[in-house]
Amino acid sequence: MSKSYYIGIDIGGTKILTALADNNGKIVNKVKTATQADKGQKVIISNILNSIKDVKKSSSVKKSDIRKIGVAAPGPLDFENGLIIKNSNLAWSKVHIVDILESHTKKTVVLENDANAAALAEKYFGAGRDSDNILYITISTGIGGGIIIDGQIFHGGKGNAGEIGHMTLIPDSDYQCGCGNYGCFEAVASGTAIARRGKNVVKQKRKSLIIDYSKGKPELVNARLVAEAAREGDQEALQIYSLTGRLLGIGIANMVNLFDPEIIVLGGGVMNAEKLFIEDLKESLQQRALNYNLKNLELKKAELGKNAGVVGAIAVSMGDDLYRLT
Amino acid sequence: MSKSYYIGIDIGGTKILTALADNNGKIVNKVKTATQADKGQKVIISNILNSIKDVKKSSSVKKSDIRKIGVAAPGPLDFENGLIIKNSNLAWSKVHIVDILESHTKKTVVLENDANAAALAEKYFGAGRDSDNILYITISTGIGGGIIIDGQIFHGGKGNAGEIGHMTLIPDSDYQCGCGNYGCFEAVASGTAIARRGKNVVKQKRKSLIIDYSKGKPELVNARLVAEAAREGDQEALQIYSLTGRLLGIGIANMVNLFDPEIIVLGGGVMNAEKLFIEDLKESLQQRALNYNLKNLELKKAELGKNAGVVGAIAVSMGDDLYRLT
Repeated sequence: MSKSYYIGIDIGGTKILTALADNNGKIVNKVKTATQADKGQKVIISNILNSIKDVKKSSSVKKSDIRKIGVAAPGPLDFENGLIIKNSNLAWSKVHIVDILESHTKKTVVLENDANAAALAEKYFGAGRDSDNILYITISTGIGGGIIIDGQIFHGGKGNAGEIGHMTLIPDSDYQCGCGNYGCFEAVASGTAIARRGKNVVKQKRKSLIIDYSKGKPELVNARLVAEAAREGDQEALQIYSLTGRLLGIGIANMVNLFDPEIIVLGGGVMNAEKLFIEDLKESLQQRALNYNLKNLELKKAELGKNAGVVGAIAVSMGDDLYRLT
Repeated sequence: MSKSYYIGIDIGGTKILTALADNNGKIVNKVKTATQADKGQKVIISNILNSIKDVKKSSSVKKSDIRKIGVAAPGPLDFENGLIIKNSNLAWSKVHIVDILESHTKKTVVLENDANAAALAEKYFGAGRDSDNILYITISTGIGGGIIIDGQIFHGGKGNAGEIGHMTLIPDSDYQCGCGNYGCFEAVASGTAIARRGKNVVKQKRKSLIIDYSKGKPELVNARLVAEAAREGDQEALQIYSLTGRLLGIGIANMVNLFDPEIIVLGGGVMNAEKLFIEDLKESLQQRALNYNLKNLELKKAELGKNAGVVGAIAVSMGDDLYRLT
């Protein structure tokens, strides 16, 4: 019997990651393509289709051995109709991505929210291996996440559950979120929030290395610059990370009280600066989560990094073959 | 073939409700017993066992026709071991309720969190009939809730999910919750929070009917008294209910973003005053929940009232017989 293969595609705002994997989820080939998000739907679709051709071409895998294709895309998604509904990063809306890719490739295409896909990837190929009940949270410019219950993605009622980043955490905050709301988890505790607090230090001309590093230009401040200042002992920068840690702890405590996971897996670029906030995060998590739910709860760092999305797309396409792996 | 019957028991802080139902979930007999919670485990257990005898005795149902017993109790619960872990209302902890009742009755006993049981009751016998994906929230002295996904109670990872009342809603609030934390949903938006705000009006001697009705004694203020003042047009009281509505809307919006339900069912004593806050609730729900998750979302009032727990206990005991009803 010939071996089965799967293709995973992670559609991001700037790049498309496409990978070919065997039926153990082992990646045998991977390509990176520019999304060209500003050029609209036709160009993006064409780039996706080219990436599929490329990932096959440079491998020895026959087309007939490829079983399914998994697609990870930012939500919201309409699972019933295989639709990417709206996407501010991709200059399109209501794209029948599943139909389009199926008609071109003649393969079954499975669509999933990128954060959910990443959560599934960490469960089967990353930090969540040892548990079937995982809360995955990625902290970068935004905050996203996926919830794995009994080894499967939790989709909730109508499919669009787990919008962790859009849980209101500070109702009276003036930090507006991309969704239009104020005080969302991602508006107050993401890399963007860290940068915003750093920019305020510059604007208010408070004594801080953040001003030196940014040459007094607020627009040059980002989460990484604030982290550099914090590592040099800058008090303003340290306080920004400490506050962020406390807010992350509160948001995670809410998720622990609502989903009662066994393992929390934390990923995303902001985690590169974890030493600056992880103790504050743990402290507020301990304070805010119910004792019973905290019992045996583990906090782990994500293992798959920027590959989480594409590995997740593969995991999603594998279906039953995936569950065979555990 | 003889008919099958089920017994449901709702163990509350002041009373035990026990009901006998047929395999369509129709209640054929019901008894109410004092819990005598202050008298400790032995007395409570004895009261529960007596209620089981009583509910059978005054019906014509034979013991052999009773298939299972469902027990609804306040959480947290240890499902694996059939344990009520801790319960400040019942003066006991670590009670092997399932083992105890099974050894006395020789019937299979199924344990469930009371709010989860009530949610299941509303799904199969109440306001949630038309949907398989329901968020049930009860607003009384506390805030509790249960999440029904695909017609079944969502237990999350380790079983103790859905602790809606202990989601932190206002991190810097000085309203302490029974759990020890500050700013929990139930600490800031329950009947207790309404009473607390009313008491403050009295303590601060602000101009309000709340002072007249309570004769200036803060300890006499409760949510119902504040509602009475609000119905007379009292501004302080109206503002208290309006604020409560906004906070309820935020908490519910968070649940909508995380669980994507089709129907929200609202119950509990505070809902008797819904006219005083429902518009504020809806407005903040609209503002805070994601558009996609709001689509086709229905808001309904619970139908089962104080029977929700005992009907839920019956629903829990019915198992497969329950799913046959849909």
